[in-house]
Amino acid sequence: MKNSDKVTEIVQQLGVQARKASRALMGVSTDQKNQALHAMANALEKHTPEIKKQNALDVADGKEKGLSSAMVDRLVLNDERMSAMIQGLRDIAELPDPVGNIRSSWKKENGLILEKRSVPIGVIGMIYESRPNVTADAAALCLKASNAIILRGGSEALRSNQAIADALQEGGREAGLPEHVIQLIPISDRDAVTALITMDQYVDVIIPRGGEGLIRAVAENATVPVLKHYKGVCHVYVDRVADAQKAWSIVENAKCQRPGVCNAAETMLVHSEIAASWLPEMADILESRGVELRGDDRAREWVPSMKPATEEDWYTEYLDMILSVKIVDDIYEAIDHIHHYGSGHSDAIVTEVDENKAIFGRMVDSAAVYINASTRFTDGAEFGMGAEIGISTDRLHARGPVALEELTTYKYVVTGDGQIK
Amino acid sequence: MKNSDKVTEIVQQLGVQARKASRALMGVSTDQKNQALHAMANALEKHTPEIKKQNALDVADGKEKGLSSAMVDRLVLNDERMSAMIQGLRDIAELPDPVGNIRSSWKKENGLILEKRSVPIGVIGMIYESRPNVTADAAALCLKASNAIILRGGSEALRSNQAIADALQEGGREAGLPEHVIQLIPISDRDAVTALITMDQYVDVIIPRGGEGLIRAVAENATVPVLKHYKGVCHVYVDRVADAQKAWSIVENAKCQRPGVCNAAETMLVHSEIAASWLPEMADILESRGVELRGDDRAREWVPSMKPATEEDWYTEYLDMILSVKIVDDIYEAIDHIHHYGSGHSDAIVTEVDENKAIFGRMVDSAAVYINASTRFTDGAEFGMGAEIGISTDRLHARGPVALEELTTYKYVVTGDGQIK
Repeated sequence: MKNSDKVTEIVQQLGVQARKASRALMGVSTDQKNQALHAMANALEKHTPEIKKQNALDVADGKEKGLSSAMVDRLVLNDERMSAMIQGLRDIAELPDPVGNIRSSWKKENGLILEKRSVPIGVIGMIYESRPNVTADAAALCLKASNAIILRGGSEALRSNQAIADALQEGGREAGLPEHVIQLIPISDRDAVTALITMDQYVDVIIPRGGEGLIRAVAENATVPVLKHYKGVCHVYVDRVADAQKAWSIVENAKCQRPGVCNAAETMLVHSEIAASWLPEMADILESRGVELRGDDRAREWVPSMKPATEEDWYTEYLDMILSVKIVDDIYEAIDHIHHYGSGHSDAIVTEVDENKAIFGRMVDSAAVYINASTRFTDGAEFGMGAEIGISTDRLHARGPVALEELTTYKYVVTGDGQIK
Repeated sequence: MKNSDKVTEIVQQLGVQARKASRALMGVSTDQKNQALHAMANALEKHTPEIKKQNALDVADGKEKGLSSAMVDRLVLNDERMSAMIQGLRDIAELPDPVGNIRSSWKKENGLILEKRSVPIGVIGMIYESRPNVTADAAALCLKASNAIILRGGSEALRSNQAIADALQEGGREAGLPEHVIQLIPISDRDAVTALITMDQYVDVIIPRGGEGLIRAVAENATVPVLKHYKGVCHVYVDRVADAQKAWSIVENAKCQRPGVCNAAETMLVHSEIAASWLPEMADILESRGVELRGDDRAREWVPSMKPATEEDWYTEYLDMILSVKIVDDIYEAIDHIHHYGSGHSDAIVTEVDENKAIFGRMVDSAAVYINASTRFTDGAEFGMGAEIGISTDRLHARGPVALEELTTYKYVVTGDGQIK
């Protein structure tokens, strides 16, 4: 037997178990799920020393293997992060159960009563990179929506993830959950990912979280549907008639408040008629914050300190204190730029013109479109949806924050009294 | 240049044009879309002689190539079918516009107003087999939801489809629609399908309609998300305490009313305690209708005329006057059977026990779950959703009938007054 066959067999076994668990979860009550989440939080508390011990081994190995300091930082589980993880489970227990909601219901002339009910998606395959807290966060969200989960974390965090998963499973057992609701792929072999993402009969959706390379590889090779979050090339467009102060503060916030995240702005588009009066002071503000500006020729006429932007810049998610700047002649040029170079994540307009608010809101084809507000609000908690498992830049099923409701699907329950066609 | 490269280039060009058209459609009003649908209906009327002429060529070729008589029948466009197609466009014009609906909206403490708005999916790739009326039906539904469509019909219907698409495009031009909203792949080369289903940057979803082989091939090779309808292995479970008359009529209807469609029943599950009193008469009714029964050993004790069912039978979508019959000892055995062998399409229980209605409604994991009604109701029109483009047995985005609302997605429009994070 080839090694890849053995790996496939192991992963398939997890799939069989997960499908069985997902069916059993359809009979588990809200109370039982919430009790399990608290029991899992308790188990994580109890096993914190062991989890930290395993994490220290991962961290030591990571350093030895030459992981970057940023990677090592993401890997570390200190007391603060453990507490946040534990509190996260308790918070999810407090959220409303998304399963069983009647999304709509109606009665037909023949007397049939139709209900469109929220139901679990089924089995979710979660593929992620170094942060071990994702193990608990993702498992808890999936459980709350009555989904079984198969977790596949980064190989550099395998021992940490295993220790966390063990504690979660212990909590689940104590609360009387069905077996195999939460499973972690116990091997770091890459063939395990291939097996997971092609196991249509047992896995209903793959959610990859990590760098673009990981996500692209998963999307290209998966036969299971994938809920993707590629990247956030977000724009702020400052319109011809805009409140200068609002525009300065929105751009500054969208770029600087946390530049390393997907909803931070990467490109500023400025209407040519407001450039003279508004752009130089904006540049001063950003440069004083340490932002490197890269402009097109027209922007550089107003702010000669800008570096020239290349074609590549417009496509780039810097995740850093860099902003590309382009002058446009009207709102349609701005929208065309956003559609051509953007990633459909979060894009904002700053304008005082009602017509342009409506045009931008209607025409811009992004998961979140902002009118006079910072792009930084695209987030499950900020939207009032509670914790999220990621932000989808896909168009089907879920767009924007993927929180509890997005981890459900629906079915029709049709009740009659003997109706035939 | 290889032929496959040329094909890819042609299809990519359609993709570029479709994406542009889909952006332009975001600015097209409901009235304009409805006028275009009527103009398309008029153009189909006007060009009926030409369409029938092209269709006659397709039919003659099909016969010469030895297409089965069923295939030839599906291919034929007679006056009745032309009228139905034309009326279909007018009916879709009358349906409410699904785009722009506010699915929900709320205000955050910081004053931000969030709206979750229905928006078009974007570009839809439709792959279908012989029936040429799908060209008009699918194009009209997609247009009504402001999507651009790229059509790829069966090669045996290429001239018919082209003639229909020409008429639709003429109607669109007359009504001032953006160009390239409706496009048909003008070549029957198989590489065109490969190009279409891997063109992520230009196509947002593929909807295949046809046999299981077609759908499986598309699903396995696509990188674009696919909305699938595999098959309907539908069940009727007759519970221990059931109204005998209702149960007879529901099973008869689910099996016999139109056996060749996906929501027809293929398997009947009967509680062991009702079998003696109920099953023999059911068998008489079905056999008198010409249904061949294939039973497990316990069913054959009550109805010796049944053929023995093989393991394969439980998985089979007969699409014919054949029904497999199994005796079960309780509702859970019925549900397990449905989950193991079913296709998650439409499954029914006949019972007078409220608890069992609730259990079946909750636990059965199918797109449509029926309580005391025939499975034959799973259909967009029957559900009150209007015309449908297909029935999804997938779990994400759309489950069950895919009608206008399912051809939309959503985005968040967030309106503020300078809010920053």
